[in-house]
Amino acid sequence: MLEGLKRTVLKANLDLVRDGLVVRTWGNASGIDRESGLVVIKPSGVSYDTMNEGDMVVIDLDGRVVEGGYRPSTDAPTHIYLYREYPSIGGVVHTHSAFATAWAQAGRDIPAFGTTHADHCYGAIPCTRKLTREEVGNEYELNTGKVIAERIGANDPLMFSSVLVYSHGPFCMGRDAPDAAGKATELEEIARMAYFTVVLGQTVPVDDYLLGKHFSRKHGRGAYYGQDKSKGS
Amino acid sequence: MLEGLKRTVLKANLDLVRDGLVVRTWGNASGIDRESGLVVIKPSGVSYDTMNEGDMVVIDLDGRVVEGGYRPSTDAPTHIYLYREYPSIGGVVHTHSAFATAWAQAGRDIPAFGTTHADHCYGAIPCTRKLTREEVGNEYELNTGKVIAERIGANDPLMFSSVLVYSHGPFCMGRDAPDAAGKATELEEIARMAYFTVVLGQTVPVDDYLLGKHFSRKHGRGAYYGQDKSKGS
Amino acid sequence: MLEGLKRTVLKANLDLVRDGLVVRTWGNASGIDRESGLVVIKPSGVSYDTMNEGDMVVIDLDGRVVEGGYRPSTDAPTHIYLYREYPSIGGVVHTHSAFATAWAQAGRDIPAFGTTHADHCYGAIPCTRKLTREEVGNEYELNTGKVIAERIGANDPLMFSSVLVYSHGPFCMGRDAPDAAGKATELEEIARMAYFTVVLGQTVPVDDYLLGKHFSRKHGRGAYYGQDKSKGS
Amino acid sequence: MLEGLKRTVLKANLDLVRDGLVVRTWGNASGIDRESGLVVIKPSGVSYDTMNEGDMVVIDLDGRVVEGGYRPSTDAPTHIYLYREYPSIGGVVHTHSAFATAWAQAGRDIPAFGTTHADHCYGAIPCTRKLTREEVGNEYELNTGKVIAERIGANDPLMFSSVLVYSHGPFCMGRDAPDAAGKATELEEIARMAYFTVVLGQTVPVDDYLLGKHFSRKHGRGAYYGQDKSKGS
Repeated sequence: MLEGLKRTVLKANLDLVRDGLVVRTWGNASGIDRESGLVVIKPSGVSYDTMNEGDMVVIDLDGRVVEGGYRPSTDAPTHIYLYREYPSIGGVVHTHSAFATAWAQAGRDIPAFGTTHADHCYGAIPCTRKLTREEVGNEYELNTGKVIAERIGANDPLMFSSVLVYSHGPFCMGRDAPDAAGKATELEEIARMAYFTVVLGQTVPVDDYLLGKHFSRKHGRGAYYGQDKSKGS
Repeated sequence: MLEGLKRTVLKANLDLVRDGLVVRTWGNASGIDRESGLVVIKPSGVSYDTMNEGDMVVIDLDGRVVEGGYRPSTDAPTHIYLYREYPSIGGVVHTHSAFATAWAQAGRDIPAFGTTHADHCYGAIPCTRKLTREEVGNEYELNTGKVIAERIGANDPLMFSSVLVYSHGPFCMGRDAPDAAGKATELEEIARMAYFTVVLGQTVPVDDYLLGKHFSRKHGRGAYYGQDKSKGS
Repeated sequence: MLEGLKRTVLKANLDLVRDGLVVRTWGNASGIDRESGLVVIKPSGVSYDTMNEGDMVVIDLDGRVVEGGYRPSTDAPTHIYLYREYPSIGGVVHTHSAFATAWAQAGRDIPAFGTTHADHCYGAIPCTRKLTREEVGNEYELNTGKVIAERIGANDPLMFSSVLVYSHGPFCMGRDAPDAAGKATELEEIARMAYFTVVLGQTVPVDDYLLGKHFSRKHGRGAYYGQDKSKGS
Repeated sequence: MLEGLKRTVLKANLDLVRDGLVVRTWGNASGIDRESGLVVIKPSGVSYDTMNEGDMVVIDLDGRVVEGGYRPSTDAPTHIYLYREYPSIGGVVHTHSAFATAWAQAGRDIPAFGTTHADHCYGAIPCTRKLTREEVGNEYELNTGKVIAERIGANDPLMFSSVLVYSHGPFCMGRDAPDAAGKATELEEIARMAYFTVVLGQTVPVDDYLLGKHFSRKHGRGAYYGQDKSKGS
């Protein structure tokens, strides 16, 4: 079932490896079929070297395994929470990519220091608050989704697609799994540049008018970056 | 038309990927045919994986598409401005390479700290001033070209070939597109070394006489680096 | 003899190269056959490019060469000490990977800054005390094993598998040689992230309850990460 | 002529590229045939992509081209000075590798922070003084050799094989060209680790007794690292 979706979810997982975002088995990508409400997600702790389409796990929005010989990623409840909360998204990716994770471990939003960042999202990449002892002790992965949603707030998760979870690492959303994986690649590069930028002494973010200009030329109503507005990147 | 130029422009774009200067579709290279006054430039937002010569877009110096099935790079007006301003250049490259962009985001010139830098240009790599709200709001990409030209001033753009645009990233010029791409590779490495150098506590640039010696042994009238003065690098 | 063990020990040594942990010949992996009490270890100073199974050296727990045309790694006495001290381990790896070594050269424990670290071990990665002049002058490699054991103390070396030796570099233990090599890869990435994290200003480790949650979901009694508790990672 | 030497010199030059020490054409390796007193060196400014044995240039110890269709590296007089000064060396390598160059640009010796460094040389990697205006203005490349020799002093250049030239970059010596290239690879990694180490706050070098122990177990009279004392690494 959902063979096409399995293919794109596998591709997204392998994109993370190709782009250097994943060490060992640290990362996971999923995609949703909105019609059936089923999610295809990476199995937990399986090596990327041998992973194939048939290893992908199909779960429903209550987290029950519908098809697959493996356990789904332990982070599945976070993915599910985001799919339930945001009907517009079709893919979710979580990595421990080094620079994005370092900002998360420092508990800092990534300031928008330039146009590279502005092309990715409109404003700082937010870092969530810490989860409380209770939130970690009970339904930890679900609560991870909740603190992400707190920071997205009323924003469009396709425009505001990356969030850092405090002491943990980044989650990215997209139109589908490969789009979310692309966001994860962008985020890591932005996190890397921002790290170098603060070491070079910058403390002030890019001017609002330049931030808005770049974001809107790529994502806004009158976007003129790329070949087709519907592509978006 | 201009098949040879398309080939070198494609090569320059792929050189940027090979040298690790480009993430996703963040970068563009162009070349000009001075006889016809036509510019060949990368299409906007197209993946490098599948890009071929036929995807290159031919535009004139008023920015009109003369040939090609894609929109040209959104930065085309910046390229055009530089071609109009500097008749000696044959190629322009723009990237968001991480270290050069970090200096641009920090709004800092890159000091000439050593002979590697001196081989690239005679003095600091300049960072432009910020564009004003008005310059961003109206003809933004054209105005980007103008602030670059402000910092080149009366210098020869083939000797003084790299400029950082504040909050944005580097632009490099060259005899042709691959030469400009090579400058972009040099710039990124220089920016990387300069970053490490300032972290190690250096605040003083290289002595003028050593800067001049290295630059002139490679680029000056009595240059003796390389095989042939006309090659230059 | 011990052909299967030689194969896994060779694999572990090559894993270190693949994961970028080894420059030149700086690193070594070994595995033990608990039944016979024999250890298979990398030869000293032999290039990885041409290394094959037959080059692996078989030694006993007194350090005597039992089979092999080469001298064993100079660090063999450290490996042997750890095998004698910890009957549960089946593999030992030593590298000079850059970030782990930098923490060792700084003489600092690596604080547990996040969940990536928590997945690897429960608490800071310890750095040993300095060896004394006497410990270096006499049976240096054996004493290296002793200061490692001092920092592991009563902990389970499979749960607390990485130690930094002051002014030297990391040693990792595992169920077998490839498992120990995997720990070395994890450690280097954790050391890298922790470096960026401290540069970004973080001084406080992750909350205990989040540290414990992550460690136990992967390694504890009720672990639910991965496919099978016996696999462990 | 000297076909075997050309082969090893070409190999050494390509080793630099393989090990990531060279960007563009920034680097050169040479080797000497002591019997004839002839030096084989990389041509100046020629691309590594197409370089072959026949491109290597043969010069004598007065710098005259004896064979070859290209100009020798502009740094040839530095190489020659070192060959004349140190009869024991058979190869010289110069790179602009990023971390070693950053220390050179900062004008700082690289402190011996650990055993990785101790395996490479006995004590700090020295950085030369600045060259004076007169030394740069007249016979610059020869004078570069002289300031290197000033810092080697009475030491054995095979034991003390790496020197940083102020504002410039590293030079390494070896038994032959590939050995010198290997030293350059070691130096870059040591420079990288030392950079991270100082950022982590270390200011004190490794204890003398540990420094001496490691250096001598690899290079001293009673060396027991590696397979054969005559190999040395």
